Amino acid sequence: MSGVQERRVDINAARLWDRHMAMAKIGGTPKGGVNRQALTPEDIQAHLLLADWARARGFRVFLDAIGNMFIRREGTDPDAAPVMSGSHTDTQPTGGRFDGIFGVLAAFEALEAAEDAGLATRRPLECAVWNNEEGARFTPGCLGSAVHCGVFTLEEGLSKTDAAGTTMAQAVQELRAMLPFAEPRALKSPVAAFVEAHIEQGPELEATGNQIGVVTGMQGNRRFAVEVIGEDAHSGTTPLRRRKDALMAATDIVQGLRALFHDPEDVIRFTIGRFEVSPGAISVVPGRVFFTIDFRHPSQEVLTRLGDRVDGVCQEHRGPCTVTVTDTSHAVPVDFAATVPEAVAAAARARGYRHMSIYSGAGHDARYLHLLCPSGMVFVPCEKGISHNEAENAKPEDLAAGCQVIADVMVDLANRL
Amino acid sequence: MSGVQERRVDINAARLWDRHMAMAKIGGTPKGGVNRQALTPEDIQAHLLLADWARARGFRVFLDAIGNMFIRREGTDPDAAPVMSGSHTDTQPTGGRFDGIFGVLAAFEALEAAEDAGLATRRPLECAVWNNEEGARFTPGCLGSAVHCGVFTLEEGLSKTDAAGTTMAQAVQELRAMLPFAEPRALKSPVAAFVEAHIEQGPELEATGNQIGVVTGMQGNRRFAVEVIGEDAHSGTTPLRRRKDALMAATDIVQGLRALFHDPEDVIRFTIGRFEVSPGAISVVPGRVFFTIDFRHPSQEVLTRLGDRVDGVCQEHRGPCTVTVTDTSHAVPVDFAATVPEAVAAAARARGYRHMSIYSGAGHDARYLHLLCPSGMVFVPCEKGISHNEAENAKPEDLAAGCQVIADVMVDLANRL
Repeated sequence: MSGVQERRVDINAARLWDRHMAMAKIGGTPKGGVNRQALTPEDIQAHLLLADWARARGFRVFLDAIGNMFIRREGTDPDAAPVMSGSHTDTQPTGGRFDGIFGVLAAFEALEAAEDAGLATRRPLECAVWNNEEGARFTPGCLGSAVHCGVFTLEEGLSKTDAAGTTMAQAVQELRAMLPFAEPRALKSPVAAFVEAHIEQGPELEATGNQIGVVTGMQGNRRFAVEVIGEDAHSGTTPLRRRKDALMAATDIVQGLRALFHDPEDVIRFTIGRFEVSPGAISVVPGRVFFTIDFRHPSQEVLTRLGDRVDGVCQEHRGPCTVTVTDTSHAVPVDFAATVPEAVAAAARARGYRHMSIYSGAGHDARYLHLLCPSGMVFVPCEKGISHNEAENAKPEDLAAGCQVIADVMVDLANRL
Repeated sequence: MSGVQERRVDINAARLWDRHMAMAKIGGTPKGGVNRQALTPEDIQAHLLLADWARARGFRVFLDAIGNMFIRREGTDPDAAPVMSGSHTDTQPTGGRFDGIFGVLAAFEALEAAEDAGLATRRPLECAVWNNEEGARFTPGCLGSAVHCGVFTLEEGLSKTDAAGTTMAQAVQELRAMLPFAEPRALKSPVAAFVEAHIEQGPELEATGNQIGVVTGMQGNRRFAVEVIGEDAHSGTTPLRRRKDALMAATDIVQGLRALFHDPEDVIRFTIGRFEVSPGAISVVPGRVFFTIDFRHPSQEVLTRLGDRVDGVCQEHRGPCTVTVTDTSHAVPVDFAATVPEAVAAAARARGYRHMSIYSGAGHDARYLHLLCPSGMVFVPCEKGISHNEAENAKPEDLAAGCQVIADVMVDLANRL
C-alpha cells in the first residue's frame, strides 16, 4: 500500500460542498428537496453544468446511445481501460439533495483533485452519469446502466415511454442536442473497475458511528403482485356470513405474511407498498384488493425458501375470497468481487475513517456494472437514514470523507490494476 | 278489516312490469343495468314519462322547491291530507332496474288501479318521486326528502353541487323547465301516512321464502374516518425496528375492530369500504392510511356502546404510528309507529302472501317521512340480495305482490285514517 500512500491526492471539501449546493438549485423545491427527473429540462441542465465544469478543466465528455454521460481525465497509457466512478443526476419527484448527485460529484471531484495535484495515473479516470437510475420518469430504474452493461437491448431501452408518452429515444435526443461537443461512447466499452459513492439511505452508519460503509454486496429481492377477489355488497344489508369481503381477507393474508417474514434478527425486508381497495365506497363491502410485496434479503437461499411460500400463505388466509399471486420480479443478490471492497477498506483505514462492512439494501447502478468489471460502493451516513424524501440530509464532512475514499481508490486502482 | 276487504282494488301486474321495462330503457346500460343519476337528462326524462302517464289518467302533477315530484289522484274530501307512497327514479352510476323505481311505479300503479276500479277514497292518493335519493350525483343521499321534511333547510339543499360544479338549484330549475304544467307544492305539506315499496337489497326474504317484508324500522348507523400516520421509508434499507409502517398499523387496527364488532348473532353490520394507502409505491413503506368505518345496528344502545369504543381500539393497536378517529355521522335507528306496519301486515295476510317482519339495513326516504307522518315500508325479494349493481334482479310476481300490498294499504288508510 506504500505506493498508494505516496501518490494519493487530497480532495477539496469546500468545492465538493459548493458543487452540491449549485446542483441542488436545479429542480430545487420549496421544501428544500429536488425534483429533477431523468432527462427533463432540469436534469439536462444538470448534465450541462457538469459538462461545463469538465470542459473548463480540459476533460473530454462522452455520451453513449442510451444517454449515459462520461467525463474523462486521460491516463498515461492511452489504450488502458478507465477506472470509473459515478452515479446519477436524476431524482425522485420529491427527492433530496444528495441521492445520486453525491456519487457524480465525488467522482468529478476525484478527477479535479488529481488535476489540481498534477498527478498522472496510468489508466484514465472517468466520472459516469448513469441515465434514469430512479425509475421515476421511465420504468425500470437503472435503465441507463442496465442497457450499457447488456442487461436490456438498446432497442428495449429506447422504446420505454414516460407518462406523457415521450420515448426514451426522444429524451436522449434532447440531451444529445444540448451536448453537441460530446463524443460517442460505445455500449459495454471496457472498464477496469467501477466504484460508486452514495448516501446510505439507511440508518446503520449513523447508528453505529461509522463514517464509511464498505459495501460488500447488494441484497436481492423478489416482488409479488397479489389480487384478492371477493364480491361487492351493500354494507347495510349484507350479513357477515354472506359476505366475501376482499379487504378482510387481505388483512388476514397480510397478517399471515407478517408471520412468514418474521425475523428476530431484522435482516429480512418485507414491505407492502401498494395496497388498493375497490370499489372504495363507504357503504360498499370491497370486492377487490390488489397489493404488492417487496421482499429483500442478502441470501438467495432465504429469498427462494420464503418467497416460494408466499402463494401458500395467501391461499391459506383467503377466507371466502379467491386470491392470485404473481411472481413479478426476482433480482439475485450481488456479492462484489474482492478487488474494489478491499481497496475501499484500505483507503478508509489509511485515512483513519471509522468504517464498517455493509450490505446495500437499495439497488444501484453498481448492480449492473458488476457484470462488466470489478465493482464496489462507498456509503456515507445520511440523517436518520431518510431518503427519497425532500428532508434527505447529509453532513459536509461525511461527504468529504466518502469523496476522499473514492479519489484514493481511483488513483490506487488506476495505477495498480 | 271488513271495510278494506270490500273496497280493495286489484293491481295490473302486466302493466306494472311493462312500466318497469319502459323505465329501464332510460339510462339503460349495455350490462342490463341503469345509470340514471339525479336530475341528469335521463332522470328528467323518467320524470317526464311518469308525468305523461299521470296526465293521461287525469292526475295532477306537483313539484316542490327541492325537486320532489308528486302525482295526485283526488279524494272525496278536498281538504284531507293525502296518503302517500313512492320512492325515487335516480340510480347509482352502475345501478339496477328496480332500486327506487319499483317504489315509484308501485305507487303509481295503485293510483291507476283505483282509477280503473272507479273506487273513490276519502283522502287523495299520491305518488311521490323523491329527488337525489342515491346520493351519487349530489351528496348526501335522500336530499329531497330530507329538505322536504325539514332536516336540512332549502338553502342548504339547493347549494349542494355535483362533481362538475352544477348546483342543485340549477338542476331543479332544469327539471321545472321541462314540467311547465307542474303545480307548486309547499315543503312539509301535511301527509296522512307514507308507505314506501322497495326491493329488499338484502338476502333475507329470498332465503326464508317470504314474498313480503313488513318493515318495522330502519337500523341506525355511525360512521368514522380513521387516519393512521407513520413515516414513508425506503423498503430496501429500513429495518423493521425503525419503521413506522402505517399499513401494518392499520391492519392491526382492523383486526382489533373486527374483534370489537364480532357478533355471533350476525346482526351488527361492520364495513370498511374506503381504505387508501399512501404514497402507494412498491418500494416505499407507507406513511399514511385513511379508512372509513360504517357501523349499523337496530339498537341505539349498541350503536352508542360499541361506537364509543372505536377510538380506544384504534389507539390500542396503532403500534409506532399515530391515529386520529373522526366521528363523521350518526343516524339514529328508526322504529316506525305501528299504524303503517300493521296495515302492511294486515294487507299481506288478507292477500295470503308469505310475510315476515324485517328491519331495513339500508337508508330510504321513509327515514325522513317518518318525521312528518306515520310511515312504513314494504320489501320484496331481490335475487341473491344483490343491489347497487347492474346485475340487480327481481321477479315480476314479487313486484306485483308488493304493489298489491301498497294499493291495499293506501286505500285502507285513505278511508280509515
